[in-house]
Amino acid sequence: MQLTGKQLINGELVAEGTTTFHGYTPHNGKPTATAFYEATDAEIDRAVAAADRAFWTYRKTTGAARAAFLEAIATEILALGIDLIDTAAQESALPTARIEGERGRTVNQLRLFADFIRDGSWVREISSPLQLQKMPNGEPALLRQQQIALGPVAVFGASNFPLAFSVAGGDTVSALAAGCPVVFKAHPAHPATCEMVGRAIQKAAGQTGMPDGVFSMVHGASNRVGERLVQHPAIKAVGFTGSFRGGKALYDLAVRRAEPIPVYAEMGSTNPVFFLPGALAGQTDQLAAQFAASVTQGVGQFCTNPGLFVASAAATDFTNELARQLSAMPVGTMLTAGIQQAYSHGITHLRTIANTRQPTPWTGGTAQPHLLLTSVDNALQHPELSEEVFGPSTVGVLAQSKEELLSFARQLTGHLTATIHGTEADLAEYADLIDILTTKVGRLIFNGFPTGVEVNHAMVHGGPFPATTDSRSTSVGTTAIYRFTRPVCFQGFPQ
Amino acid sequence: MQLTGKQLINGELVAEGTTTFHGYTPHNGKPTATAFYEATDAEIDRAVAAADRAFWTYRKTTGAARAAFLEAIATEILALGIDLIDTAAQESALPTARIEGERGRTVNQLRLFADFIRDGSWVREISSPLQLQKMPNGEPALLRQQQIALGPVAVFGASNFPLAFSVAGGDTVSALAAGCPVVFKAHPAHPATCEMVGRAIQKAAGQTGMPDGVFSMVHGASNRVGERLVQHPAIKAVGFTGSFRGGKALYDLAVRRAEPIPVYAEMGSTNPVFFLPGALAGQTDQLAAQFAASVTQGVGQFCTNPGLFVASAAATDFTNELARQLSAMPVGTMLTAGIQQAYSHGITHLRTIANTRQPTPWTGGTAQPHLLLTSVDNALQHPELSEEVFGPSTVGVLAQSKEELLSFARQLTGHLTATIHGTEADLAEYADLIDILTTKVGRLIFNGFPTGVEVNHAMVHGGPFPATTDSRSTSVGTTAIYRFTRPVCFQGFPQ
Repeated sequence: MQLTGKQLINGELVAEGTTTFHGYTPHNGKPTATAFYEATDAEIDRAVAAADRAFWTYRKTTGAARAAFLEAIATEILALGIDLIDTAAQESALPTARIEGERGRTVNQLRLFADFIRDGSWVREISSPLQLQKMPNGEPALLRQQQIALGPVAVFGASNFPLAFSVAGGDTVSALAAGCPVVFKAHPAHPATCEMVGRAIQKAAGQTGMPDGVFSMVHGASNRVGERLVQHPAIKAVGFTGSFRGGKALYDLAVRRAEPIPVYAEMGSTNPVFFLPGALAGQTDQLAAQFAASVTQGVGQFCTNPGLFVASAAATDFTNELARQLSAMPVGTMLTAGIQQAYSHGITHLRTIANTRQPTPWTGGTAQPHLLLTSVDNALQHPELSEEVFGPSTVGVLAQSKEELLSFARQLTGHLTATIHGTEADLAEYADLIDILTTKVGRLIFNGFPTGVEVNHAMVHGGPFPATTDSRSTSVGTTAIYRFTRPVCFQGFPQ
Repeated sequence: MQLTGKQLINGELVAEGTTTFHGYTPHNGKPTATAFYEATDAEIDRAVAAADRAFWTYRKTTGAARAAFLEAIATEILALGIDLIDTAAQESALPTARIEGERGRTVNQLRLFADFIRDGSWVREISSPLQLQKMPNGEPALLRQQQIALGPVAVFGASNFPLAFSVAGGDTVSALAAGCPVVFKAHPAHPATCEMVGRAIQKAAGQTGMPDGVFSMVHGASNRVGERLVQHPAIKAVGFTGSFRGGKALYDLAVRRAEPIPVYAEMGSTNPVFFLPGALAGQTDQLAAQFAASVTQGVGQFCTNPGLFVASAAATDFTNELARQLSAMPVGTMLTAGIQQAYSHGITHLRTIANTRQPTPWTGGTAQPHLLLTSVDNALQHPELSEEVFGPSTVGVLAQSKEELLSFARQLTGHLTATIHGTEADLAEYADLIDILTTKVGRLIFNGFPTGVEVNHAMVHGGPFPATTDSRSTSVGTTAIYRFTRPVCFQGFPQ
């Protein structure tokens, strides 16, 4: 595909602006070839106006019609072939196999949502007879509730999943499935991948008879583009995956609008893992190896990366083996120079905190995996030890007793996930821990690892603030659709 | 019942403060006997702390146990007998029969929620097998999603329904049903009614073994009490019914907290009614009489009061008859002196707007029913004609054509309800109107009236901003429970 660097607005590639920016190749630190145009204010407004017009026809399309659209998107993404894989790998420094896997996940997600909406049962129709109103034939009038689409949605993708959490990712797919047009803010860390996937969506829309404005995409390396998008009166909801700073800034703008709108910002967390005594009694080395793999998967660049764990202070075999495993891991390349620097600064800062041990070597300036150990008391005194440093590191909090472990759990803020490793006997003894963690997270895992968020009907990828701005939702799985709907009821209408 | 005027905190009646206020008897303008104590900051904090402690046991009670609690509340409210009816009638100036009806609705609502939560199916459990995680027996691990309680909820009742939208109203009942303790801010317009019902809830909690902190109530005539409540870190959601100014102020506080929380503020609307040509062809007088009854029901003090209607400019028989009916209606007594003044000022102001007709007499200073007529052009030029004046008035917008009618519908903001009166032929011809109104409201009524919100499984009492601060919810009906829950999923746990 010949890249243009232009906005995709109402079915056309346009560029009125003069400011441009380039993507970046993390492997060699060099800019990519294509110049991308910053969207002008007028272009942003045109994209939203097109979405608003499209809403009036798109919201009334059948589930079957929208399912065909989503399946056509999947087909068009696959038709991009190796070009897409190479482009995404180049822009993200993620290995080809990982990008191929992510494409599979993206395509499967589109098909899962297509199946979910096809027959219309997803609208959760509820019907009740009325006591006060009768139909002309004397029968009680009916009240029928169903979920309907909210309106045009602004979506911001994440840099760490250039396919699955980007242009055709979970936010876009669930909004389109619900009947909401999408205006996508392309991610400046992978603008070429964005253009390719955006044009695939536009092609699919044309093939399946969807209105042109059902999907538009605007580029921008500055915050201005996203800020204007979120503040446009015709935008009715926002989906976002990324940093706390970015998500919270969009939330703050959205709730201060003349008409406040919901913001679903998934902002990551440290996803604490609790290793209970029974788990560490036997298979210590295997568990340390699996945990090290989870910490370093994708160079630690997962929202569900386990950046925090809790174990007994007596579990020195485990922590020693974990240090050995992490020290032996290859040093990866991170998504952007900014992320790389933030990781390096973050670890260098954590190492200055008193009463911590760092059994892994650290030279700084790279994405070297890192382990830091501290006590519960020290962790409670230094909350930054529990805060996310995006990358392949983890902080171990060592408890002297069950009570200390529970006291640490009680003061946790909201996280996407928490994990418990233990035997069934541990579960019984630590029932309070399950109880506490249930109030803190969107997903509680037993004897697994938080990385690897499967897309299915039951998944919750969300959790209490500050993991997200709206704990009542998930950004992964089919129930993500209900972020972009609201109930309406029809009273006394003929069938 | 001997009233105390005290806060109800963690099962005890307490009053540490020295500032007091009195209720008000609208019928004679005099204060009521009991002095009510303004809650101190420390009392508010204690009420919330008690709710937070209670949450840890209350959230784990079974649906059956909570159902028994709700049913006991219903029993205890009925046990208050004629005392409660007299007190609420005295504080609200609403007729005894209306208060009796409202008590029936309140009790039935408690029982409906009890039935809804008893068997636990309301938690919407969804189960999916995982591809990446296996159980020890080799079977795929399961992911199980369910809805869980958010945490302590602050509830603010409305003055216009001293029972059904107050202490034991829909917000309290749905929060308690979900497993959330409630701290209720008593309404200063009916503090005695609040104390009676609050103590009935406390008694029911004791009888059914619920923790004392499951329900507390604080009094206050100042905004300080509610503001502190909403800003307390342990409060996790807010339910409110009342004015736009009050609801929006609480929303603004809640979204600016360190941890933002959801606010479900139902702030009323003008609930436009569209009379289509077929409806006005036949039964004009009957329709005018029914509409006049809806406009003046409860002295027009309903959130769903139809303060706006649209008809053909040619429908002079209808508007003449409506004017005659409204002029003949008795002048009622409003809930408070403030509401009475706001109504009088509001109507007096509307009458100064150019290009309007007022075929009903107006002396000002009372709750005299009122009709004001204007053109679509004038209504579009003067948005305040479409804004709520709480009370027994309605503004008729007269359209010259179907296009004019649709253009007026398109510019409507969010409302709780819209209504269409017409024949089935009208419905077919005005399909665009249905389409437009569906995007504007929470409930769309055909050939009925918006007043009389029945409590059942399908009801939506909500709608887009500015009718509410969260269109994704309803404050009436069993689905109101999901305002106070969030999804969590459990991965890989033994059954």
